[in-house]
Amino acid sequence: MAAPVDVLRLPGALRERDAVVVEEPLEIRVNGAPIAVTMRTPGHDEELALGFLLSEGINPQRAGPPADLAANTIEVEADAFDPTGLERHFYTSSSCGVCGKGALEAVAVEAPPVASKLRAAAGLLAELPERLQDQQAAFAETGGLHATGLFDPAGELLCLREDVGRHNAMDKVIGWAFGEQRLPLADSILCVSGRLSFELVQKAAVAGCPIVVAVGAPSSLAVDLARDRRVTLCGFVRGGRVNVYSEEWRVVS
Amino acid sequence: MAAPVDVLRLPGALRERDAVVVEEPLEIRVNGAPIAVTMRTPGHDEELALGFLLSEGINPQRAGPPADLAANTIEVEADAFDPTGLERHFYTSSSCGVCGKGALEAVAVEAPPVASKLRAAAGLLAELPERLQDQQAAFAETGGLHATGLFDPAGELLCLREDVGRHNAMDKVIGWAFGEQRLPLADSILCVSGRLSFELVQKAAVAGCPIVVAVGAPSSLAVDLARDRRVTLCGFVRGGRVNVYSEEWRVVS
Repeated sequence: MAAPVDVLRLPGALRERDAVVVEEPLEIRVNGAPIAVTMRTPGHDEELALGFLLSEGINPQRAGPPADLAANTIEVEADAFDPTGLERHFYTSSSCGVCGKGALEAVAVEAPPVASKLRAAAGLLAELPERLQDQQAAFAETGGLHATGLFDPAGELLCLREDVGRHNAMDKVIGWAFGEQRLPLADSILCVSGRLSFELVQKAAVAGCPIVVAVGAPSSLAVDLARDRRVTLCGFVRGGRVNVYSEEWRVVS
Repeated sequence: MAAPVDVLRLPGALRERDAVVVEEPLEIRVNGAPIAVTMRTPGHDEELALGFLLSEGINPQRAGPPADLAANTIEVEADAFDPTGLERHFYTSSSCGVCGKGALEAVAVEAPPVASKLRAAAGLLAELPERLQDQQAAFAETGGLHATGLFDPAGELLCLREDVGRHNAMDKVIGWAFGEQRLPLADSILCVSGRLSFELVQKAAVAGCPIVVAVGAPSSLAVDLARDRRVTLCGFVRGGRVNVYSEEWRVVS
């Protein structure tokens, strides 16, 4: 989603109308209570809210516009919602916080290891970032969007979502899969356009996805979490090469 | 900051020891109360905490290890600290939230427009990303770090900070400037290695920086905020070219 802006191009002093990616705040409400504000690219807001909450260990049921029809707001219905779980990220109210615990234990959402027996050829994984980019129409226009793609084991793209925030793009894909009753993602591969932070691996693991592929580099905590949750993490996937950081038995060379 | 990991490289099935950028949680406490947990690359934690709080409109005085010496924790002393201002990002407790307000009004920290009369040559601005990258030693090693550099009007690098999170890199630079009593940054230029989100422009504007340069694309809200706060925003600064999105009178062609 792009918005027009006037730009001065130098050298040459060319004044042109250009397109930039739209970034706007979205307020997510659960059972009527405002829970979070995220900066996102508008579009697929229901999916974004559902995927975000699933990643936080909440069990949403459905999402839609709020009763008061407030702009940039999504209302989610959830069973047995306890907001204290969300405070982990937004506001640490306990006095122990991060200290004294291992980093993973302190920040990771509880979830079982990914048990999927899915395996994939290295050659197929190596092609996914390119397939993702081929489909990224908006990227060509604004140069400002992260993407996440969900692929089936044959390398067919099932869902592509883009956003100014990389975590939002993955939340949208996971929210889509929720709506399609495809969770857990035991027979699917997630591919992201950029780098792999802890947060992205967390979202993939909670969604039950066994293989995550990224064009860019993983962080240390992303690797730690992938190993802990038995997710196969592939980074620097470009030019036919694949770096496998965890659970390499799923990658058939 | 890099950590060693074992990696399997395909094709070729080469097993090697590789370096990944370190990502760990940091708990920020203000006057003893835990306020936020951010995922960051360790190092310059005091600067990160100071810069983060300044960007949020808090007036910190000093930062250091907490009295209980908890790991991955920074204790900040601040005058007249009111935590309600921080809830804007972390937990929206009011029922109005984002709805019914303009996006900027809802999420922007209040700050006056940047009044600096600083001007800079387009040719000099065009060189800053390259100078930043030349100094980014860690990037070459792990490929996983965002950088922010603070430059003087002659294009000399005053401070460079890197982090797995782009906002953290800028927080560290602003925290450094705070410690050096260089705030507001009226005679300085900030240069970032990636894209320009709303949040980065917000941090620059609150720090009083008149010119922000980025290798990547700006978002719509980044442009909106830059215009509102009279910050000169330059994007797609690569290959000798500069796109100016706001307050172009500061760029001398």
